[in-house]
Amino acid sequence: MKSEEMAKSTQLIDNEVFRAYATYTTIVLLKMMLMSLVTAYFRITRKAFVNPEDVASFGKGETAKKYLRTDPDVERVRRGHLNDLENIVPFVGIGLLYALSGPELSTALLHFRIFTGARVLHTFAYLIPLPQPGRGLSWAVAYAVTISMAYKVLKTALYL
Amino acid sequence: MKSEEMAKSTQLIDNEVFRAYATYTTIVLLKMMLMSLVTAYFRITRKAFVNPEDVASFGKGETAKKYLRTDPDVERVRRGHLNDLENIVPFVGIGLLYALSGPELSTALLHFRIFTGARVLHTFAYLIPLPQPGRGLSWAVAYAVTISMAYKVLKTALYL
Amino acid sequence: MKSEEMAKSTQLIDNEVFRAYATYTTIVLLKMMLMSLVTAYFRITRKAFVNPEDVASFGKGETAKKYLRTDPDVERVRRGHLNDLENIVPFVGIGLLYALSGPELSTALLHFRIFTGARVLHTFAYLIPLPQPGRGLSWAVAYAVTISMAYKVLKTALYL
Repeated sequence: MKSEEMAKSTQLIDNEVFRAYATYTTIVLLKMMLMSLVTAYFRITRKAFVNPEDVASFGKGETAKKYLRTDPDVERVRRGHLNDLENIVPFVGIGLLYALSGPELSTALLHFRIFTGARVLHTFAYLIPLPQPGRGLSWAVAYAVTISMAYKVLKTALYL
Repeated sequence: MKSEEMAKSTQLIDNEVFRAYATYTTIVLLKMMLMSLVTAYFRITRKAFVNPEDVASFGKGETAKKYLRTDPDVERVRRGHLNDLENIVPFVGIGLLYALSGPELSTALLHFRIFTGARVLHTFAYLIPLPQPGRGLSWAVAYAVTISMAYKVLKTALYL
Repeated sequence: MKSEEMAKSTQLIDNEVFRAYATYTTIVLLKMMLMSLVTAYFRITRKAFVNPEDVASFGKGETAKKYLRTDPDVERVRRGHLNDLENIVPFVGIGLLYALSGPELSTALLHFRIFTGARVLHTFAYLIPLPQPGRGLSWAVAYAVTISMAYKVLKTALYL
């Protein structure tokens, strides 16, 4: 192994699998962050808030209080956001270890792309909403991809 | 330092502490993911759903609507899942930095094993449920392990 | 490049940007963990619990049951905690990739410091609570910092 190559391989960000991981992880985390903006959009358009200080500008007393309420659309986005947290956190953690476990580039890309596509579909299925099993299937596909990466990590790195 | 050794040490996944981190992180993240399946199991057996599209197959109108309800068992699993997120996310993040901060292998294993054991106990304590302070103690032990790793990270890496 | 330097640069924890990332990530994760203790504090002082086993020591039957209730202060802390999860998880994930993408130390420190400061302000704004737009602005600043890091990651590492 030449010294140059070695130096290169020590820079994670120059490794193609790691670059793919960085790209898709950033995309799914940005998608998750977008849920905050969608929540804010529905809170404002539906006038459905949860904190008294958020409705203070609408007036005083009873006038403002009527905006402290739940709205089905807001709650729907919030459930989608929580589902993202529950599923994207394992992807980010297990995906990092998977990217470092030396998978084939093409296999890694397949995992990252399917996960990302499935989670984008999941968001549309939740927000539109699509009839079941649309949301269920997109959830299950992303879940299975994470399990597959976890299997590779444990096969490569197991140290109990 | 011989060139071979150096090449070896650049592969995180060949480092024993990092392998232990990868193993226990994957285990606790899989355990957290399992909560989704337990939630789905209770939603289906208790017939307690939250999205109208999830009960559409049970019939139309009022027939289906009665399954849009909360169930104590479902809510219990969901609280356990959220508690996992609140505690496993810091473990994954701080644990990674801890694994890279050069701890003794035996000390690192002790941290990872106690955390993982405590969180598995916490899940059983929540779902059975065990009388307090069973759940409280298992939560506190895992919390203390994470604080201990955070202390080592800050002692080694502090750069404000 | 001398062999010694190279060996040094392979140790992530010796890299100044990475040390800064490790420091600020540990601080914001500890801050997030603190929310659990604040929740416990309010649950105990307000006597507002959610699990029957948590109130068993207060007596039997109706005596204990009246403590199974929601309290505005407890719910406020829990919303702050969830908001932390929604925003600190992307910071930890994208921040790691950003730290590995070779940013200038001063630029990286600026990102990490502003994010950490904004999230600490957000917590105070939520818990005191401060009038809006205090909480909204601190949320937006931390959000913008994360977007800025994501942009750098995608610019450096994009591999679709």
